[in-house]
Amino acid sequence: MNHYKIKLHTIKAFAFDVDGVLTDGTVQVSENGDLLRCYNAKDGLAIREAIEAGFPVAIITGGSSETITRRFTTLGVKNADIYLRSRLKMPDLLDFCHRYDLQPSEIVFVGDDLPDIAPMQQCGLPCCPSDAAPEVQRVAQYISPCPGGGGCVRDVIEQTLKIQGKWNITAPPVST
Amino acid sequence: MNHYKIKLHTIKAFAFDVDGVLTDGTVQVSENGDLLRCYNAKDGLAIREAIEAGFPVAIITGGSSETITRRFTTLGVKNADIYLRSRLKMPDLLDFCHRYDLQPSEIVFVGDDLPDIAPMQQCGLPCCPSDAAPEVQRVAQYISPCPGGGGCVRDVIEQTLKIQGKWNITAPPVST
Amino acid sequence: MNHYKIKLHTIKAFAFDVDGVLTDGTVQVSENGDLLRCYNAKDGLAIREAIEAGFPVAIITGGSSETITRRFTTLGVKNADIYLRSRLKMPDLLDFCHRYDLQPSEIVFVGDDLPDIAPMQQCGLPCCPSDAAPEVQRVAQYISPCPGGGGCVRDVIEQTLKIQGKWNITAPPVST
Amino acid sequence: MNHYKIKLHTIKAFAFDVDGVLTDGTVQVSENGDLLRCYNAKDGLAIREAIEAGFPVAIITGGSSETITRRFTTLGVKNADIYLRSRLKMPDLLDFCHRYDLQPSEIVFVGDDLPDIAPMQQCGLPCCPSDAAPEVQRVAQYISPCPGGGGCVRDVIEQTLKIQGKWNITAPPVST
Repeated sequence: MNHYKIKLHTIKAFAFDVDGVLTDGTVQVSENGDLLRCYNAKDGLAIREAIEAGFPVAIITGGSSETITRRFTTLGVKNADIYLRSRLKMPDLLDFCHRYDLQPSEIVFVGDDLPDIAPMQQCGLPCCPSDAAPEVQRVAQYISPCPGGGGCVRDVIEQTLKIQGKWNITAPPVST
Repeated sequence: MNHYKIKLHTIKAFAFDVDGVLTDGTVQVSENGDLLRCYNAKDGLAIREAIEAGFPVAIITGGSSETITRRFTTLGVKNADIYLRSRLKMPDLLDFCHRYDLQPSEIVFVGDDLPDIAPMQQCGLPCCPSDAAPEVQRVAQYISPCPGGGGCVRDVIEQTLKIQGKWNITAPPVST
Repeated sequence: MNHYKIKLHTIKAFAFDVDGVLTDGTVQVSENGDLLRCYNAKDGLAIREAIEAGFPVAIITGGSSETITRRFTTLGVKNADIYLRSRLKMPDLLDFCHRYDLQPSEIVFVGDDLPDIAPMQQCGLPCCPSDAAPEVQRVAQYISPCPGGGGCVRDVIEQTLKIQGKWNITAPPVST
Repeated sequence: MNHYKIKLHTIKAFAFDVDGVLTDGTVQVSENGDLLRCYNAKDGLAIREAIEAGFPVAIITGGSSETITRRFTTLGVKNADIYLRSRLKMPDLLDFCHRYDLQPSEIVFVGDDLPDIAPMQQCGLPCCPSDAAPEVQRVAQYISPCPGGGGCVRDVIEQTLKIQGKWNITAPPVST
């Protein structure tokens, strides 16, 4: 079994960057100057499943748009667990750990670019999408086959919950 | 002839999930917090053709945006056949059947993710796009070569109507 | 020389469908229910060049959004040459011909789906993008290697103007 | 060492076209007729890094939307260095050079289509994305493996700053 799969057993929470992880990295500038983003429905379902299974989920991003908060509170992420305008992300990751009485070693962090390297080096299992910056890929212990916005968050959550027997436990039973 | 092609002869109606089926699964969060979606014009033409050929068409989605209703009523789908906020989709599929005096076995359902598995197991011909979740692909009797938002709905409708001799019967005759 | 290249010498005007030709076929439903489209800057430059070189350009589409008119008048297309809500496209193509005293045989028509087949069969050179519907590909005399929204209009205009010695004649001279 | 890499040592500033370079070339027409564009977060981080490292950055585009100005001033580009409605781009490039007391030979220009050829021929290092027009690729001394909107600006800035020892110097130290 791969080393990262062993670690999945001990994961108790998830932390995600936004641009390039939960999106493909593109932002559309609206007429009012807001930055609009496109999210992936399959990632969204996985975040819902993780929260229903009892995993705290943090969003830690340099972005500042309130549309980010709207997207993730709709999926069940707590307002306090959404960190906007996060430049040095490590203090925000530590705040998240503190509030849930968790160690960084119990957390998956998924990032894709330079500001994500510090929290990735401190967390339990650093992951990245297939199209992360090369420096980030070198720090990652698991590189998803999916690109940013293309299911990498679904991939990481689903593997974690399945290995812990918690995936889709609320779904209607499948008869075949 | 493939098994699913035999079933196409007995299909009398269509039911579609939205995200990941009629779209590529991405949703854009607008400044007002609404979720905006991109649809495929070739799918749209096929839905028009199906309705003109007499097939009821249902939209059964967990989504809640009124923009979904606007898109499909414009194409001729009846307002009552558009089910928003559908979490357990089976009751909505049964309501659709009841109102048209149809059996689930006479319906194609196209879905792509976990909430679609229950109605897919009950309908006459469960189909999915090429990029559906693995669990969904296992339940599908026909996996379109097209991804969600990339023509999978056009593919399924066109095959059904052609095999029943009802495709594009209102088009101007082609002279060559 | 391919047959279609011989015909390019006699072309005097262009007519384009919108969805799937000047776009990749996706439409975004806005909060107000309008259909928003994404266009290609390289296609836009070619349309400007064609108009500056004296070629009338028609837009013939089933779409109804005023944003279509805005896009193409900005590029220099005359308001009267933009046909919205065109279901049977042949009458609109004939109107365009009549107003410029042209024969259909002197016009390139680029289409991608069933409603485009009639005008394609009547025009001088029927063209389509690489991802047009199979029925349309059978009618086309030239299939661009570019998909809808991916430069197929640029490809067709550029080939026509180059073969007639009219491409980019207003550009600053290149010194090397 | 490739010829273009030698030139990277002498580069003191960057100038970028927008459509097809900082975007994939698609523009969305909004309900108000504005042209909205999607930008790449990894390009954005590189522009920030270049400015923090002391490189002036110019945006020289035929586009006219104020959303372009908003995007790049947010990243630290000076308002005076953003040239909208630039048809003949060479005068704007010379104005940029004059204001910073730079020679065109000290500037990288990244362009993708015909209007970019003139400034590319005059600048120190003409670059283009992988999907630039063929005429532009012939003028470029470096063709990025990345397409427009897909990281070509990140690629060019990162190579320049790395070869000059100025990449990511403000980042937290990496412990491994």
